[in-house]
Amino acid sequence: MRRSERLIGLTKHLLDRPNQAVSLSEIQGLLEAAKSSLSEDVGFIRQALENLQQGTVQTISGAAGGVRYVPRLSDTERALFSAEMVERLSDPSRMLAGGFVYMSDILGDPLVIDYVGRLFAEAFVTSGVNVVVTVETKGIPLAVATAHYLHCPLAIVRREHRVTDGAVVSVHYVSGSNRRIQSMSISKRAMPDFARALVVDDFMKAGATCKAVVHLLAEFQATVVGTAVFAATAEPLQKLVDDYKALFEVSDLEEGRVPVVRSTMFWETQ
Amino acid sequence: MRRSERLIGLTKHLLDRPNQAVSLSEIQGLLEAAKSSLSEDVGFIRQALENLQQGTVQTISGAAGGVRYVPRLSDTERALFSAEMVERLSDPSRMLAGGFVYMSDILGDPLVIDYVGRLFAEAFVTSGVNVVVTVETKGIPLAVATAHYLHCPLAIVRREHRVTDGAVVSVHYVSGSNRRIQSMSISKRAMPDFARALVVDDFMKAGATCKAVVHLLAEFQATVVGTAVFAATAEPLQKLVDDYKALFEVSDLEEGRVPVVRSTMFWETQ
Repeated sequence: MRRSERLIGLTKHLLDRPNQAVSLSEIQGLLEAAKSSLSEDVGFIRQALENLQQGTVQTISGAAGGVRYVPRLSDTERALFSAEMVERLSDPSRMLAGGFVYMSDILGDPLVIDYVGRLFAEAFVTSGVNVVVTVETKGIPLAVATAHYLHCPLAIVRREHRVTDGAVVSVHYVSGSNRRIQSMSISKRAMPDFARALVVDDFMKAGATCKAVVHLLAEFQATVVGTAVFAATAEPLQKLVDDYKALFEVSDLEEGRVPVVRSTMFWETQ
Repeated sequence: MRRSERLIGLTKHLLDRPNQAVSLSEIQGLLEAAKSSLSEDVGFIRQALENLQQGTVQTISGAAGGVRYVPRLSDTERALFSAEMVERLSDPSRMLAGGFVYMSDILGDPLVIDYVGRLFAEAFVTSGVNVVVTVETKGIPLAVATAHYLHCPLAIVRREHRVTDGAVVSVHYVSGSNRRIQSMSISKRAMPDFARALVVDDFMKAGATCKAVVHLLAEFQATVVGTAVFAATAEPLQKLVDDYKALFEVSDLEEGRVPVVRSTMFWETQ
């Protein structure tokens, strides 16, 4: 196999497996190359990705040994994404009754889903997350992309469980928007043991839903390492969960007015 | 920029944009190379991907000109995936009351989500799909991955719409499982005009839900080009929608029995 072909094949193999340990023996079988050549190739790929601000390739020491691609978005990609989202969210026609913002079209945009997944994964990659949890429905696409980039399973909390969920654990909570008692459930078999969970959602006002998820996960002895949301309202300033990170903060949410949108991309302060 | 670095950067740029037209000028700005060198690089990448059965790079002629990465899974990847899924689905502990199969854990597995998205995209890439539609909740992760690989927006049909959906279009239908009248809605603004829709879902018995989606989309003058489901039951043989493609067929679905699972990976016959 030619050098260039091997580099391309190895690049694809690693990029297809973000934050996943890949052993050199596994790649050897695929690309038919000596370990020394592969190590050199990995060095080239690491250098190229770092120069382009597209992440890095980490070396994993230990008996198995291997490498892991850790993705990131370049500064240019972040800046363009941030500006585009602020512009799209600031459209007054998005304002809905009750201080909500219409975002279904944005949350169905494949580029937005992909970028948000990368950004959330980047922010929590060192937290040892082993499950991404979301509440149906709008946050699911973002949670899917985040789980992909963190390489961990996805568990979906449902408001009304069905026969296909199998055995479930349920909790009741008081909804933040209408102060009514609601319930949420999660399939027992979908939650790993000793989980370190990242909660992902699209929108946060007071944070009542996310707080209920924390209570639900406590039934599994899970640790919630953080909460990542696409957009949060500026008011109330004090949310019901700590440790939440939002990409955008929205305020002045009244029908007919122009909402004020601020990029709060948390990673910029890192 | 070194040759190897350019190849790696270009490979990443294309792989990040499956089924998306990328102009050579766009890449030139990123990688600072002459168009002639880039064309040669594209040739290398195409050859390497084809040799590894990992898709190809198509050249787009016309005024703009450009290239497009079209992904595929290798024969080995398909065979391993098929065998693993058949084994996991054949577990008798998955059998639920009413002839349902427990699949939430499988549908939350990031590798499964990714592979199913690739397989669905591969099967419908030539159908001119410009929106992927799914019904909440379990099919959403598969629809997200499919929309990513087809590079088109995702629209989610909801059983109970909320204020955050904005203006919606709703239809009523008779549920296949309990013969009761149910409703489903879709946000108007989330559906593109003149849509060519691919319907994605996790499980199909009679197909009543998918048929209702066809009716709902007809309200938008949309054309449904096909339906892709992860698993379908062998009975009834005649579904309520034509043109559906399932990756797996399950039969003998009774609690306490071992379900019979057959891989029907439709692409094998192509």
